[in-house]
Amino acid sequence: MRAWQFERVGTPLALREVPEPRPVAGEVLIEIKAAGLCHTDVGILHEPKWTERIGPFPLTLGHEVAGVITEVGAGVEGYVPGDRVGVFAAGRTRPGQGRDGGYAFQCTALPEDLVRIPEGVGFEQAALGTDAGCAAYHALVRRGGVRAGDKVGIIGLGGLGQVAARVAVVKGATVFVAEKKQSLWPLAKELGAQAVSGDITDFAGENLDLIVDFAGFGTTTAAAIETVREFGTVVQVGMGELTAEISTGTLIFKQITLIGSRGGSVADIAAVYDLVAAGELKPQVVPITFDEIPAGLERLRRGEVDGRLVAVYD
Amino acid sequence: MRAWQFERVGTPLALREVPEPRPVAGEVLIEIKAAGLCHTDVGILHEPKWTERIGPFPLTLGHEVAGVITEVGAGVEGYVPGDRVGVFAAGRTRPGQGRDGGYAFQCTALPEDLVRIPEGVGFEQAALGTDAGCAAYHALVRRGGVRAGDKVGIIGLGGLGQVAARVAVVKGATVFVAEKKQSLWPLAKELGAQAVSGDITDFAGENLDLIVDFAGFGTTTAAAIETVREFGTVVQVGMGELTAEISTGTLIFKQITLIGSRGGSVADIAAVYDLVAAGELKPQVVPITFDEIPAGLERLRRGEVDGRLVAVYD
Repeated sequence: MRAWQFERVGTPLALREVPEPRPVAGEVLIEIKAAGLCHTDVGILHEPKWTERIGPFPLTLGHEVAGVITEVGAGVEGYVPGDRVGVFAAGRTRPGQGRDGGYAFQCTALPEDLVRIPEGVGFEQAALGTDAGCAAYHALVRRGGVRAGDKVGIIGLGGLGQVAARVAVVKGATVFVAEKKQSLWPLAKELGAQAVSGDITDFAGENLDLIVDFAGFGTTTAAAIETVREFGTVVQVGMGELTAEISTGTLIFKQITLIGSRGGSVADIAAVYDLVAAGELKPQVVPITFDEIPAGLERLRRGEVDGRLVAVYD
Repeated sequence: MRAWQFERVGTPLALREVPEPRPVAGEVLIEIKAAGLCHTDVGILHEPKWTERIGPFPLTLGHEVAGVITEVGAGVEGYVPGDRVGVFAAGRTRPGQGRDGGYAFQCTALPEDLVRIPEGVGFEQAALGTDAGCAAYHALVRRGGVRAGDKVGIIGLGGLGQVAARVAVVKGATVFVAEKKQSLWPLAKELGAQAVSGDITDFAGENLDLIVDFAGFGTTTAAAIETVREFGTVVQVGMGELTAEISTGTLIFKQITLIGSRGGSVADIAAVYDLVAAGELKPQVVPITFDEIPAGLERLRRGEVDGRLVAVYD
């Protein structure tokens, strides 16, 4: 089968003809229906630090995988061919990072990394849910502890921010969005946000309980700390920059909690799927073809993508 | 009576003859037996920002007050003359910040700010417990959530750090102390610390669950984030500098929680008093006289004080 493979930092993905994978004992084989394009893939292509955490190489990228089980290896219980599943994203054992992934037509996975896709949830949204959806939910709900009645600030209305903004609304929070791109402001309103602005500090008078920063440009972290209420919480997800100059004086004076968040769990993916199935959450997917994957990653790198790019295979 | 009063930023405390205070309805009158000297007083003397939060002026400073109730105003229940009490420190209604304080021989206070001093706890230690002890306990226990079996790092073995290190040991934690002054290293061992070093990063291999930074020089915050374990907690108390350049990449990758902490509550003071009464905690007090208060604050400013200076009145 054809596969888009990563060989080394600084070179583009290579289109290779590779053998079809076979599940060994304890694994399932998945016919991939959709694979999300993630900014982490851009990092893998261009930044050496990522290649310490993934491999071996060459490696088929694509860690946001949804598809149908076509075969189960010896000893696998609870799954049968025909089951529709998403695969927990990222990590040494997982497709697209520790084994060949979703920028191909089949992959293997471990049963403990699978999440059943409920009726009414398409493969595109299931793929997005494994990583972007999961990470946004994890940050807002598990790490940020959002509660009904909270006032929540969301910085950055990209793939994760869109999910988080909507989940916060569904959870009964009043949502304030900070997004530099004015073209995305109408979307904030569609998602149910109370207000949208270019800068989170514009909501300093709102006494926000929780701010989740999906941009992470250092200045956004600092601005979130200045803006959140006394005893408020700031969750840091975005890594636009890897450092931030923050006011520890403000952190102490207002007794703020700053929490780092990444990834999530199969329970987070399942929670996202349930919200999609219930019609409460409709993440914005931009479908592309298998052949368009490298160009799609380049669009991601240039920051030209508003929704989540998902490669869809027939 | 004589009182050391603050009049304006940049001028030393002035020794004044002032009228003896009288309790109005809802207040008690306290004969002061001990008053702790706090670094906040140094801030009040030298930095304009503090004077926005306290007053009116002239104001008798001294917000770590312990003494004996000599009179109760109309409507005060639960206290009678002769009761030994500490007074919750800091805030608009409290001695030394919002009303005349402990650098004199009597002051008034509100019943809700009082904590009874148990038998076996001296006035010096009770004074220290109202603020330094309270803030250390609050940071370690309430904000940091220390638990038996935790590995805890303490940065800075000043007044607060000494209390926190000892409380952590008493709570069943294994304690690692980072303190620049080698003269304080034997004290770390006396308090029950497992190890002491000049830099918290020396304990990077220890997988610390919790680090409380009582120094707060920016670099210490950053070092704590680098050193604490995955999903670990850093509590920031010290304000040696008011900003810090931190690695948000590390914060996110290790999913660390950074918590600002200041002050505490009457419950924290009571918990400290109980530990002192039980003989578990013996904070290091350096007693001085009323006349030595201004010189004591100057020693504090120059960083020459290892224990807690407490003015003791007969």
